[in-house]
Amino acid sequence: MAPKYYIVKRAIIRKIEKEEYKENELIPSERELTEMFGVSRITVRRAVDELVGENYLYRIQGKGTYVKSDKIQQNLISITSCTQDVINLGMTPRRHVISASTEIADQRRRRLLELGDNERVFRLERIYFADDDPLNHTVTYLPYKLFPGIDAHDFSCESLYSVLGSQYGCQITTATRTIEAVLAEGKIARYLEVSSGTPILHFECVTRGKIHGRECPIEFFKCCYRSDKFKFYINQVMDGGEGDRRSL
Amino acid sequence: MAPKYYIVKRAIIRKIEKEEYKENELIPSERELTEMFGVSRITVRRAVDELVGENYLYRIQGKGTYVKSDKIQQNLISITSCTQDVINLGMTPRRHVISASTEIADQRRRRLLELGDNERVFRLERIYFADDDPLNHTVTYLPYKLFPGIDAHDFSCESLYSVLGSQYGCQITTATRTIEAVLAEGKIARYLEVSSGTPILHFECVTRGKIHGRECPIEFFKCCYRSDKFKFYINQVMDGGEGDRRSL
Repeated sequence: MAPKYYIVKRAIIRKIEKEEYKENELIPSERELTEMFGVSRITVRRAVDELVGENYLYRIQGKGTYVKSDKIQQNLISITSCTQDVINLGMTPRRHVISASTEIADQRRRRLLELGDNERVFRLERIYFADDDPLNHTVTYLPYKLFPGIDAHDFSCESLYSVLGSQYGCQITTATRTIEAVLAEGKIARYLEVSSGTPILHFECVTRGKIHGRECPIEFFKCCYRSDKFKFYINQVMDGGEGDRRSL
Repeated sequence: MAPKYYIVKRAIIRKIEKEEYKENELIPSERELTEMFGVSRITVRRAVDELVGENYLYRIQGKGTYVKSDKIQQNLISITSCTQDVINLGMTPRRHVISASTEIADQRRRRLLELGDNERVFRLERIYFADDDPLNHTVTYLPYKLFPGIDAHDFSCESLYSVLGSQYGCQITTATRTIEAVLAEGKIARYLEVSSGTPILHFECVTRGKIHGRECPIEFFKCCYRSDKFKFYINQVMDGGEGDRRSL
């Protein structure tokens, strides 16, 4: 069962989209909302607090809560390349390394990265911040034999793909990224600073590249994004409508 | 708080990924799992039932529950173009039209589709099935002035983009798709046949195209995908590593 505060949130968002609640106008008071939705004041307050945090609403002291304008155009960040958008939105990107070490690849990593028994991987765990807000938590695995000495770099400062390109001559060729929606819980919820049970985006990706003349998997990562405060986008450029780009 | 059955599910998935539970081998019994996780039998049973439904596990009558092999490679469907993948997976794609009608565009639709006051949109609401499993629920809005008579088509049989291309000479140019994770509730939960509170993917997209020599927005859609039973992917082809494709 979706929590009550969540249902109230989504209902308010729908009213904003349908313009029952108009931009820069007051929404109903807390008391009116408790009566309208048949929930407690605490539930209403949580829903409204979160909508303020997610830029749907804003509060003016002594006056009330208003609908913020044009939420939809705000805070759009590319799902595959955050940095420039974060900067364009006037925020400062920052990477925090939780851990960086080498280890024997487990069977899943061996299969995804096409490694043999006892081959090592470099495992890098980081959180990506926009100002002080965590955007995502990522665990990256690289085949150590392709990138010997990679563990000497400080990836809180350096860009991983820059290092792979400039120090190892690696050129990225393709990346297949899977997407699912999951609930944040445990460590991930704490790292992303969301409450347990918040829906988040979960990605996994195998990146292939050319290195020493061979094309092979060069990276596997899994990544969780909070999608409440920020909205992510994928841009697709079609090739002019040949056939069915999307048969639906 | 994430529900207990969900936490148990994710914990079992992690054990499968780390190969504590190996492919085609038995997982611990229900009783052992209740002791291990400190939850009720009902909770364990729900977690295991869902993992069977999601192709992580399978049951053999009289023997027990086993880990299914290679979940990661199974059931991958392109997030932007489902049909061929559904067919390749041996399933039958089917569209069910919930409603199809024209209406005056609300302010949000007017802004996204660049329409004036009192201009009409064609609103098409559908569910996309792979065999009998709902994959997604989509509501599509098209500017009626660009596609007069569009409401005469039967979009349970016809492909929308085929009709736009062949009947109206419309060529798709670009599409910007936003992604977020939300909780299924109300009608959406019922249409996707998931329980309320299940995390699902929510997309919105403005599609631009060339029609009558003009390039303009030709479609807005919002779409919810269940991502438990099926895993969706985005393929990206990089351009050989020029600069930072992903600065993280």
